[in-house]
Amino acid sequence: MTTESTFIELMRAIASDPAARGLADDVAVVDLGTESLIITHDMMAEDVHWLPSADAADVAWKLVSVNLSDLAAKGAAPIGVLLGFMLGEDSWDRRFAEGLGEVLRYYDVPLLGGDTVANRGDKRSVGLTALGRATTRPVPSRSGARAGDILYVTGTLGDALAGFEFAEVGLEGLPETMAVYHRPVARLADGQALAAAVSAMMDVSDGLLIDAERMAAASGVGMQIDLAAIPLSMSYRQQRGDSLDSRIQAASWGDDYQLLFTATAAQNLPVEATAIGQVVPGYGLSLSDGETPVPLPQKLGFEHR
Amino acid sequence: MTTESTFIELMRAIASDPAARGLADDVAVVDLGTESLIITHDMMAEDVHWLPSADAADVAWKLVSVNLSDLAAKGAAPIGVLLGFMLGEDSWDRRFAEGLGEVLRYYDVPLLGGDTVANRGDKRSVGLTALGRATTRPVPSRSGARAGDILYVTGTLGDALAGFEFAEVGLEGLPETMAVYHRPVARLADGQALAAAVSAMMDVSDGLLIDAERMAAASGVGMQIDLAAIPLSMSYRQQRGDSLDSRIQAASWGDDYQLLFTATAAQNLPVEATAIGQVVPGYGLSLSDGETPVPLPQKLGFEHR
Repeated sequence: MTTESTFIELMRAIASDPAARGLADDVAVVDLGTESLIITHDMMAEDVHWLPSADAADVAWKLVSVNLSDLAAKGAAPIGVLLGFMLGEDSWDRRFAEGLGEVLRYYDVPLLGGDTVANRGDKRSVGLTALGRATTRPVPSRSGARAGDILYVTGTLGDALAGFEFAEVGLEGLPETMAVYHRPVARLADGQALAAAVSAMMDVSDGLLIDAERMAAASGVGMQIDLAAIPLSMSYRQQRGDSLDSRIQAASWGDDYQLLFTATAAQNLPVEATAIGQVVPGYGLSLSDGETPVPLPQKLGFEHR
Repeated sequence: MTTESTFIELMRAIASDPAARGLADDVAVVDLGTESLIITHDMMAEDVHWLPSADAADVAWKLVSVNLSDLAAKGAAPIGVLLGFMLGEDSWDRRFAEGLGEVLRYYDVPLLGGDTVANRGDKRSVGLTALGRATTRPVPSRSGARAGDILYVTGTLGDALAGFEFAEVGLEGLPETMAVYHRPVARLADGQALAAAVSAMMDVSDGLLIDAERMAAASGVGMQIDLAAIPLSMSYRQQRGDSLDSRIQAASWGDDYQLLFTATAAQNLPVEATAIGQVVPGYGLSLSDGETPVPLPQKLGFEHR
């Protein structure tokens, strides 16, 4: 199979328009009249993004949240979504429709259209396009982090990992972590509040470490991250402890959909967030546990291969 | 499997925003600042929309044309596209990327972003979101046809059918019909020129008869279509003759991506088109061959089941 990175290289040769942001961002930004439009499209596939045992309503929830999380990282206000749906087993489709209705009411975001196709294969995939309007311009990007800035993350990390560990073996874990795993919430209000305060912002979808490395690369800087500062929920600690290893795992697992951002040290933050490191000259990540340097783990997060 | 119409009914209950146009149109229309944004998302699936033997570059071409044709029917100017791609066999993926580059250069439309996923199944699907800006407002819809209007279609019909007949058995047919089948062209310039002149407009993607019936239903009118007036290409006639039966087949096969529209009898048309009937009070279609009434065929076009 072609790897995702190979295919994205092929696409990058085509995507020369500045609105595509070199395909290095999660979204496209299009100036349209007096507004800036933010557009993103994310797909999910059976056995890749959801377990065959998953509740179809949770799949719908996650599909919407994953896309709205990309809008959140741009400080965008959602305009609506378009669904690309592969028809399949009747009860699954109905349950998906229920979940879709529920999640769109939760976010108060309209379904604008889309398409359905018959599935002649043995696995499904679903796709969603989300549209938003920028509430702050310039629109935050991944590339604005500057040496001296502080690196922050909202909320707690690792809860989706903790939930996944139970779901994978067919058990229910602690309610908070199961909720994050099954029904993550895009931090739209936080993103809008932060957009004018940050120098760079993105959502943590593939893992804090890999996403921080991407932000560092896009910004042409390095990042020092203190693993002792990684915010962990009480539920996460209860289930997985807070050893260094447990913290590394929380920082290299995705699906939490928190916001990762940088801001100057002088900047007052309009929302609660945890300082987890700083931006330094150079490139790449360096990790510590308090004052003690920690070697980079082999796996920084989920890589799309 | 859930039928498409069942699933669309479930979606319609969710899609209450006026921009969704009740999911009865091919696109969503969103007013954004001083502009009207037109958005559409169409998917294609192996064994449904393309033969396993198809050239992946043609699949890419058609995916883009199908979506841009929806913009054409709104008189929209394309802004860009987002691709949802399922990774698979390396040579197929590379060939798809080549075709995508080719078709986007042909239309001079930028690739803005998208997503790729691994495929754990045995069949692929691909999706595209196309964005455009309205060049004429109000944006033409399916629902504006009025009794007394003339019904027109651009170009010729049935060429994709003629091409498909050869492709299905692995042969090359006449160049013009093969070109329409493999690489249909969205009539963007015609759509923009027509937008201010029409009372209703849509593209013919599922078949002239079924699409005309949908336009009639959306407009709350009936339509009389003279099959003798259906425009057929020289190539089509050579291959399939121009008997009444052959005309009915050309009028009930999709994939030609011509524009179907209505306008008042007094309206001068800015582009060439063939008058094929008229809008009448009542509902549904009535067909004739010149003056002779013709019963409706059982199958009016491609229904998504």
